[in-house]
Amino acid sequence: MEEVEVAPPRAHEVRIKILCTSLCHTDVTFWRLKGFPPRHPSILGHEAAGVVESVGDHVHEVAVGDTVVPVFLAQCGDCPDCLSDRSNICSGLPAGRPGMPRDGTTRFSFAATGEPINNFLGVSSFTEYTVVDVAHVVRLDPGVPPEKACLLSCGVSTGIGAAWKVAAVEPGSSVAVFGLGAVGLAVAQGCRMRGAKRIIGVDLNPEKRDIGKRLGITDFINPNDIGERTVSEVVKEMTGGGADYCFECIGSTSVMAEAFQSSRKGWGKTVVLGVSNGVAPMSIPSHDILMGRSVVGSLFGGLKPKADIPILAQKYVDKELELDEFVTHEMGFNDINAAFDLLTQGKCLRCIIWMDGARENGSVG
Amino acid sequence: MEEVEVAPPRAHEVRIKILCTSLCHTDVTFWRLKGFPPRHPSILGHEAAGVVESVGDHVHEVAVGDTVVPVFLAQCGDCPDCLSDRSNICSGLPAGRPGMPRDGTTRFSFAATGEPINNFLGVSSFTEYTVVDVAHVVRLDPGVPPEKACLLSCGVSTGIGAAWKVAAVEPGSSVAVFGLGAVGLAVAQGCRMRGAKRIIGVDLNPEKRDIGKRLGITDFINPNDIGERTVSEVVKEMTGGGADYCFECIGSTSVMAEAFQSSRKGWGKTVVLGVSNGVAPMSIPSHDILMGRSVVGSLFGGLKPKADIPILAQKYVDKELELDEFVTHEMGFNDINAAFDLLTQGKCLRCIIWMDGARENGSVG
Repeated sequence: MEEVEVAPPRAHEVRIKILCTSLCHTDVTFWRLKGFPPRHPSILGHEAAGVVESVGDHVHEVAVGDTVVPVFLAQCGDCPDCLSDRSNICSGLPAGRPGMPRDGTTRFSFAATGEPINNFLGVSSFTEYTVVDVAHVVRLDPGVPPEKACLLSCGVSTGIGAAWKVAAVEPGSSVAVFGLGAVGLAVAQGCRMRGAKRIIGVDLNPEKRDIGKRLGITDFINPNDIGERTVSEVVKEMTGGGADYCFECIGSTSVMAEAFQSSRKGWGKTVVLGVSNGVAPMSIPSHDILMGRSVVGSLFGGLKPKADIPILAQKYVDKELELDEFVTHEMGFNDINAAFDLLTQGKCLRCIIWMDGARENGSVG
Repeated sequence: MEEVEVAPPRAHEVRIKILCTSLCHTDVTFWRLKGFPPRHPSILGHEAAGVVESVGDHVHEVAVGDTVVPVFLAQCGDCPDCLSDRSNICSGLPAGRPGMPRDGTTRFSFAATGEPINNFLGVSSFTEYTVVDVAHVVRLDPGVPPEKACLLSCGVSTGIGAAWKVAAVEPGSSVAVFGLGAVGLAVAQGCRMRGAKRIIGVDLNPEKRDIGKRLGITDFINPNDIGERTVSEVVKEMTGGGADYCFECIGSTSVMAEAFQSSRKGWGKTVVLGVSNGVAPMSIPSHDILMGRSVVGSLFGGLKPKADIPILAQKYVDKELELDEFVTHEMGFNDINAAFDLLTQGKCLRCIIWMDGARENGSVG
């Protein structure tokens, strides 16, 4: 814990009072990544909900007091990618210093020394106040509880979007989901909502079976329990030749290869969602991909943050989307290291961290 | 040249008098492949046109005298793949001895010794008569010249289908085609017919520039002429960030990786068509695929032989599809070794081999 100065927002920037934040595996991945973030020191955290505290020039989209979620994926609204239905990888912000406000400088500094602190993934939510480029800000209806809005800013939306938009799962499909963290469980829920018939969850943690079943998993494979067989052999046996859709939600290139091998000839599609923490590439036997298979990667489940997060939030309010199951723990900001432990030990899905230390004070609006 | 006995067709089989056949790189690949075909000896050849000489029991789809092309890709018409619009990888024939008639035995034997000879890719066209499972036979209008029908049984259809069906190229797209053999040139033509704006051809052979331009290439890259830069760097420069669609038409896993790197963030799709002659897998950096890219493989350009070859043949008759450019050489069957030389030296696109040795006698119907 460090005392940090957060300067006022400049043009196109929004200063947000964070109400709550949650921990995503990507934070852990980047935290552990050797040589990364290249811009140490930085403030991690990229799943959050908050209230606009002040805005810089040229910010018309949100106003002081608005309920917002900052999102790691930008949406400038004007670039060829934002204007296309096919992409959600905004190319409108200046390249070169990704994750920073568009002028490339930070508003964070150590209170004691004045030394600047870098942003992380355009968000930096492990702080009471953050400054975010308006392209990274999504306004929400104030009726959405912040701890649920927070979930929609990364992991859960990624999984739902992967099922609905990237894979476009059809009724009756067979699906294999590799890794039943929040993203994988959201994939399962998204597939169930789309009418998938068979949803096979794969995880080394036997405790994922029950939560998986509540969110849509119809079958569970623990790779430790299948003897000499590979997961892809078991999936092929269960599905009569391979799943229609396979989702990699871990970030392991060897699991990506296994997911690919679990996909059906003819039209099997493997969706890669996990962020790998290494440089080892994914390896695909070319003879197998020729048999009509495909591999597609996406960030944020192919969703456009400003368009799609409000839709998902409304589905939660309308009780069509289950989010409560994903919140397994809540704690105050001072206990954030305990949240890291829970996540790395696979003991939580999402731990909501309340910045003011008490859930009761965390209402938005 | 060996004297071969060709036994009469059994149930579900068709004996075809081959009129002409052509050489595809896949023949060369399999011919050279160490340890393959696993069922030596076999009769190679899989691009051909002919006339039905006799049929076995249960064959109602074609009759004696019909003009047909035998095709390496089966279409039984009844399996889940044949019944789906999404797949062209027929799963209806018995597995285990792929490329053989459905009872797993051959009709070929050496005349001298009686030793059996295996089929190749379900076709085996380097022979005056072949016996093919009816699932591998496509009936054509007798007005289609056999040397053009022959082209539609593999390479050209593969390229056109890849552009139209697998990639589904839209008007205004940018495209990079790696390898300008018959398949790559057919991709270029298919992309041009679909209104692609920029079609970049990549080939080490400078002679491919002119033929490429006649078939749709707007820009040509010779990897030998770009100094220290990689092809993907040049493609990215030409297209402002990467091509919308990249096609690998060689069968080299390193070229597959380069094609992938040449694809645009957000929606870039790499289509793998080339059959690799090695076991080295294709290598994809997982961080790059996460940026909305995809890789898809297909056989026969995703086309269903019985449905789509007649459509392409009609487009040729209607002068909408260019096929004449692909026939660069013609010769008699006795000169087939010269055809292998021409293809491996990159000196021909398609060499039509007339079984009776004279083009004039090669009329169908």
